[in-house]
Amino acid sequence: MIIDTLIKGIQEKDNPTVVGLDTSFDYLPEEMRAGVADSKGAAEAIFAFNKKLIDAVADVVPAVKVQIAYYEMYGVEGLRAFAQTLQYAKAQGLIVITDAKRNDIGATAECYAKAFLGETPVGGSSLRAFDSDFLTVNGYLGSDSIKPFLSKAPNGEKGIFVLVKTSNRSSGELQDMKLENGKTVYEYMGALVEEWGSTLVGECGYSCVGAVVGATHPAQAEILRREMPHTFFLIPGYGAQGGTANDLKVCFKADGTGGIVNSSRGILCAYRQDRYKGMPFDAAARQACLDMKSDLNAVIKG
Amino acid sequence: MIIDTLIKGIQEKDNPTVVGLDTSFDYLPEEMRAGVADSKGAAEAIFAFNKKLIDAVADVVPAVKVQIAYYEMYGVEGLRAFAQTLQYAKAQGLIVITDAKRNDIGATAECYAKAFLGETPVGGSSLRAFDSDFLTVNGYLGSDSIKPFLSKAPNGEKGIFVLVKTSNRSSGELQDMKLENGKTVYEYMGALVEEWGSTLVGECGYSCVGAVVGATHPAQAEILRREMPHTFFLIPGYGAQGGTANDLKVCFKADGTGGIVNSSRGILCAYRQDRYKGMPFDAAARQACLDMKSDLNAVIKG
Repeated sequence: MIIDTLIKGIQEKDNPTVVGLDTSFDYLPEEMRAGVADSKGAAEAIFAFNKKLIDAVADVVPAVKVQIAYYEMYGVEGLRAFAQTLQYAKAQGLIVITDAKRNDIGATAECYAKAFLGETPVGGSSLRAFDSDFLTVNGYLGSDSIKPFLSKAPNGEKGIFVLVKTSNRSSGELQDMKLENGKTVYEYMGALVEEWGSTLVGECGYSCVGAVVGATHPAQAEILRREMPHTFFLIPGYGAQGGTANDLKVCFKADGTGGIVNSSRGILCAYRQDRYKGMPFDAAARQACLDMKSDLNAVIKG
Repeated sequence: MIIDTLIKGIQEKDNPTVVGLDTSFDYLPEEMRAGVADSKGAAEAIFAFNKKLIDAVADVVPAVKVQIAYYEMYGVEGLRAFAQTLQYAKAQGLIVITDAKRNDIGATAECYAKAFLGETPVGGSSLRAFDSDFLTVNGYLGSDSIKPFLSKAPNGEKGIFVLVKTSNRSSGELQDMKLENGKTVYEYMGALVEEWGSTLVGECGYSCVGAVVGATHPAQAEILRREMPHTFFLIPGYGAQGGTANDLKVCFKADGTGGIVNSSRGILCAYRQDRYKGMPFDAAARQACLDMKSDLNAVIKG
């Protein structure tokens, strides 16, 4: 199952870090931005940046998370760079998570599932449009909106991460609301996630239906870790958003497993930090991944 | 404000129908599918179908809703057809709703907002990637995930529809859960929507922050209509999903305003129904829009 592959990758590289390729054009070094005049040029520059970055980090991290919004804003050309980035990362042996938070009713979720986790039949053959190992999804619509994503991989060849407790400041507005039964909305969503994943648990003990749990809300994360023993966490919010290794320790079990931590700006823009001053962007990104590994492991394994 | 334009369009055409361009390749007449060998061919055929359909309905409906999932599954070529469809519908004077149910934390929602409602600066000029009048969004992440969409149009030049009570069977799993305060999750989301729209109310009395409320759940829709006096409803679920004109009557106020009703398959595939047998697909679609108009008005104005 894909969750076993992800966890094996984390263990082999001894690094529970996923690099977030939220590659804003502004993050590129000036020489890569110079002379770009249109969306095609911007998209090509973004892919060139991603490629060098992937080359630099592929042996020190197990996975990348590619945030599609940063590509959609460049239209068709941006989405070409998105597809190329997924393909390139996969070819370098990385697990590829598409962060798209897709959601819709069954028939339409089926289309999204084809786009990101399955294939679209066309003219006697088929197309893997934006082929990913994992996709983030939003569960507000309930089970019949989630099932199509799982149906693409009945044996766990693909996985999803469902939003449970997100890292943003306003996430509590709905997610922290208490239900009549005393549980919060995020706990209830967490219980649905455990249920959706119950037939897709790998050898590692975690299922192919993971949860997004932000590093910025440790009290809630601690509850979720306890209530979701078979669910692996995708943990955003470390670094630029304010979450620290200490904050997210609660997402992990005593054996050091339980989640993978995303960093985007902290790695993509490492070359702008005093700490990595004078280093090329890719070398700085690599060093930032190694530093993040030390920072996380000291706490998670400590 | 864009909500005034939409409501004016409904009144001028005397038709609260929005045509859902969930154009599955399978929906195309056989002669348009013949010989298609790749995603480029499929996407071109889909756009050709949409174009003829838009030509046929542009004088009888005020708006189209384009469901992006059906295009994403054909990759970059599919998204080109999606962009072309938006542009073509707009050029024919139709209001364009992109149904994408996007959602993310603030910085990322900002990218989606640029892609669908705003513009992306590039090389001294700017790009309107998938320019729409309205975008559907998912509010599970709370206020700071919604604000970026509104910031693109501080004077209501653009609008959003937030998922409140969706048309699918499982929507109740989370949305119908009762909160401690006695309200349901969908009512709570409805209250947030009213608040988000409070500074964007047009001359029509409705705000540019609308709500998605399914025709398939009349009991819940009735409550929402009462609790959301300034919110305009985008109403899916009519026809193929099982909702009838009688079911969705509760989404409208006594003056006959309050919502716009989507039909996708019922219009796109009208030519396959016995009722429209022998008609070309575009003529059948036009007639289906007129028949839907009669069906809806008889109940809404009755």
